[in-house]
Amino acid sequence: MSPSASPSTGPEISTVTLHNGLQIVVIPDHRTPVVTHMVWYRNGSADDPVGKSGIAHFLEHLMFKGTEKHTQGEFSDVVTALGGQENAFTSVDYTAYFQRIAREHLKTMMEFESDRMTGLVLTDEIVNPERDVVIEERRMRTDTDPGAQLGEAVSKALFTHHPYGTPIIGWMHEIETLNREDALAYYRRFYTPENAILIVAGDVTEDEVVHLAEATYGRIPSRGEAPKRVRPQEPEPRASRQVSLADPKVEQPSLQRYYLVPSYTTGKPGEAEALDVLVQILSAQGTGRLHRDLVMEQHCAVAAGAWYQSTAVDQSRLLLYAIPHPGVSLDTLEKALDGVIHDVITNGIEAKELARAKTRLIADTIYAQDSQASLARMYGASLATGSTVNDVKSWPEAIDAVSAESVQAAAKAWLERRRAVTGYLLKEEVAA
Amino acid sequence: MSPSASPSTGPEISTVTLHNGLQIVVIPDHRTPVVTHMVWYRNGSADDPVGKSGIAHFLEHLMFKGTEKHTQGEFSDVVTALGGQENAFTSVDYTAYFQRIAREHLKTMMEFESDRMTGLVLTDEIVNPERDVVIEERRMRTDTDPGAQLGEAVSKALFTHHPYGTPIIGWMHEIETLNREDALAYYRRFYTPENAILIVAGDVTEDEVVHLAEATYGRIPSRGEAPKRVRPQEPEPRASRQVSLADPKVEQPSLQRYYLVPSYTTGKPGEAEALDVLVQILSAQGTGRLHRDLVMEQHCAVAAGAWYQSTAVDQSRLLLYAIPHPGVSLDTLEKALDGVIHDVITNGIEAKELARAKTRLIADTIYAQDSQASLARMYGASLATGSTVNDVKSWPEAIDAVSAESVQAAAKAWLERRRAVTGYLLKEEVAA
Repeated sequence: MSPSASPSTGPEISTVTLHNGLQIVVIPDHRTPVVTHMVWYRNGSADDPVGKSGIAHFLEHLMFKGTEKHTQGEFSDVVTALGGQENAFTSVDYTAYFQRIAREHLKTMMEFESDRMTGLVLTDEIVNPERDVVIEERRMRTDTDPGAQLGEAVSKALFTHHPYGTPIIGWMHEIETLNREDALAYYRRFYTPENAILIVAGDVTEDEVVHLAEATYGRIPSRGEAPKRVRPQEPEPRASRQVSLADPKVEQPSLQRYYLVPSYTTGKPGEAEALDVLVQILSAQGTGRLHRDLVMEQHCAVAAGAWYQSTAVDQSRLLLYAIPHPGVSLDTLEKALDGVIHDVITNGIEAKELARAKTRLIADTIYAQDSQASLARMYGASLATGSTVNDVKSWPEAIDAVSAESVQAAAKAWLERRRAVTGYLLKEEVAA
Repeated sequence: MSPSASPSTGPEISTVTLHNGLQIVVIPDHRTPVVTHMVWYRNGSADDPVGKSGIAHFLEHLMFKGTEKHTQGEFSDVVTALGGQENAFTSVDYTAYFQRIAREHLKTMMEFESDRMTGLVLTDEIVNPERDVVIEERRMRTDTDPGAQLGEAVSKALFTHHPYGTPIIGWMHEIETLNREDALAYYRRFYTPENAILIVAGDVTEDEVVHLAEATYGRIPSRGEAPKRVRPQEPEPRASRQVSLADPKVEQPSLQRYYLVPSYTTGKPGEAEALDVLVQILSAQGTGRLHRDLVMEQHCAVAAGAWYQSTAVDQSRLLLYAIPHPGVSLDTLEKALDGVIHDVITNGIEAKELARAKTRLIADTIYAQDSQASLARMYGASLATGSTVNDVKSWPEAIDAVSAESVQAAAKAWLERRRAVTGYLLKEEVAA
């Protein structure tokens, strides 16, 4: 989840803003006559109004329900008929819609996508059954899965005040209250050209894209200003937290440890980069310290790793996790995990580990450029969370500048127990 | 914290609503020529707008800053000069102002109190220094006290979505942003006759009070409707949570266990009553099960008890706590505490315990009537959280109707680990 980059050898990425505030990013890729067309809105579940959790994700569903010009399903049918693919996703910070299609159909995609930026038609007959679909989606994914339930509880314990703690899909009792008026109010507030980023990657030039965008998105009137995100910020954590869930349905116990840490948007220069390198050192496939110490040497885990949601508007999360070896308690496993962190904080990292981590991180972003859609998605996520095209472009140099001392300092500053929530997923009911 | 009652032998309490929506409650008490004059607003810290935590409490401070008619401090000076006392408090559900004074000055109190319901004058010169006072208040009370910090973290872990998890005084980073516009907007929204309850206890008759209220509060124009409380509700808890804070400043380790439970307002008939009786059985002075088992028999605690915030608009909290005997770990203490709960759930309670608990609860409310201010406060808290005068009056009968089975059922239903947050305050830093 790193904001990725085009090193100087990569494609010439450019950005332009239309008169109505729509930001356009063009990522040329002339290997095949295909384009990836994405619109990103700078609003996600963390922007859901109080008591209306799930509305961002619900609206993503409703965006497929037809407009004044096009009937329900028409856009999707056209994409399929033209041999394309489409999808959409809602995150805590953004909502995005995309199609991948032969280059000659880019204008058609723009016509449909710009049409549903303002022309959505919502009636009770459309909204109410779709709400039942979301309710069923939540029931299937979360309400019968102990791991998902623990995940929600851990998130809520990590983000106690900031809305990152609320599930993207929403809380059931609030989803049940979402109605047409809520959806329309949300749509009118956030689906505006000033709040959107158009990303086109593929066999196109900037001139072509801007020309087509002006003829489609350009017809949407300016709304004046981009909507503001109104989010309470997380207070400084003071106490370490633990969340336990024991259920007969659990087949594999597991340990997770989340820390509240800076993101690329909130961190001081170099801070998020140091955390990216740290996570790489802890979790690189085969050579990561968590795997080496817990799986290979101490035989207390069958798997262990780390992950860092570095791309985020506000303070974010860094995860360490481990699956215990059969017969090993989560308590023993946690002590071993703490030992790995304690070692980095106390003794720092080795020069060769640092070099290997940087090489891997930078190489991964170069490989990612091989996928048009991955590259478009990296730019979209970074720009929608407050980074600039130049931030993304210069990211490899920023990673290269990370020192062993800054990695140790980041571990010491951020992997503090008072900043952490530890989650325990247990195989069966503990005695009352 | 039980909504208290006037059994049939108590005073004749009456309630009247003025034409502008102000509810008046009169509690006659002719033993001394003194009155308690209180105004309760049905808004507390749980009604603070998102990102503006602390505004209810901040406005309580600002209410002493003078109006168009009266200079800053004039009201307080008059109360003092007339030999009276005054105070104010902000809770999660309400904010209240009161004076206790000789009966002949009741009208003067009403004039001042009704004046500041609409006439408050706020300038930056008044608001900004008072914000610094609140910031200092928070710093003193919380930011240097590990017990208070743990308390905040435990509340946040218990109320993960509902604003009861936010401290009444607010989060520091949000208090720092509160300004004149925030205060005025909040004042205009909530300080209205429809949102207020006037309670007068003491040497007065209903006729006198209504007559005086019409001449003072009655001059405030109606605002049409009472403001609405907009609060996200807590989702059903799924995972047990633990919060730990270790600090060198801790002199006395302690264990606290909070459960998310119904209040008198949210519970089904008899549910909150059963919890009131349960808490009495667990924590009655000298005879409570927690004291008996943990302090007297097992010698693992020097003190132990329980508490239930039964009077609340939304789902509320029930606390069990224990202070370990020197040399006893919190882990050992917690197992003993769990044993006490397990015993109630499994084996229920004895008939004589039930009888003793009911007698004590009902007697306590009769004793409370001896204090004019306590009685007024009980009515205020109950009415401001959704109970009626009749609910309060008939409370002793409702307690009397609680059965041993319903106490056991309440323990089983609500003292579940998944509903609980356990807090550990520890004497020194744990090893990293």
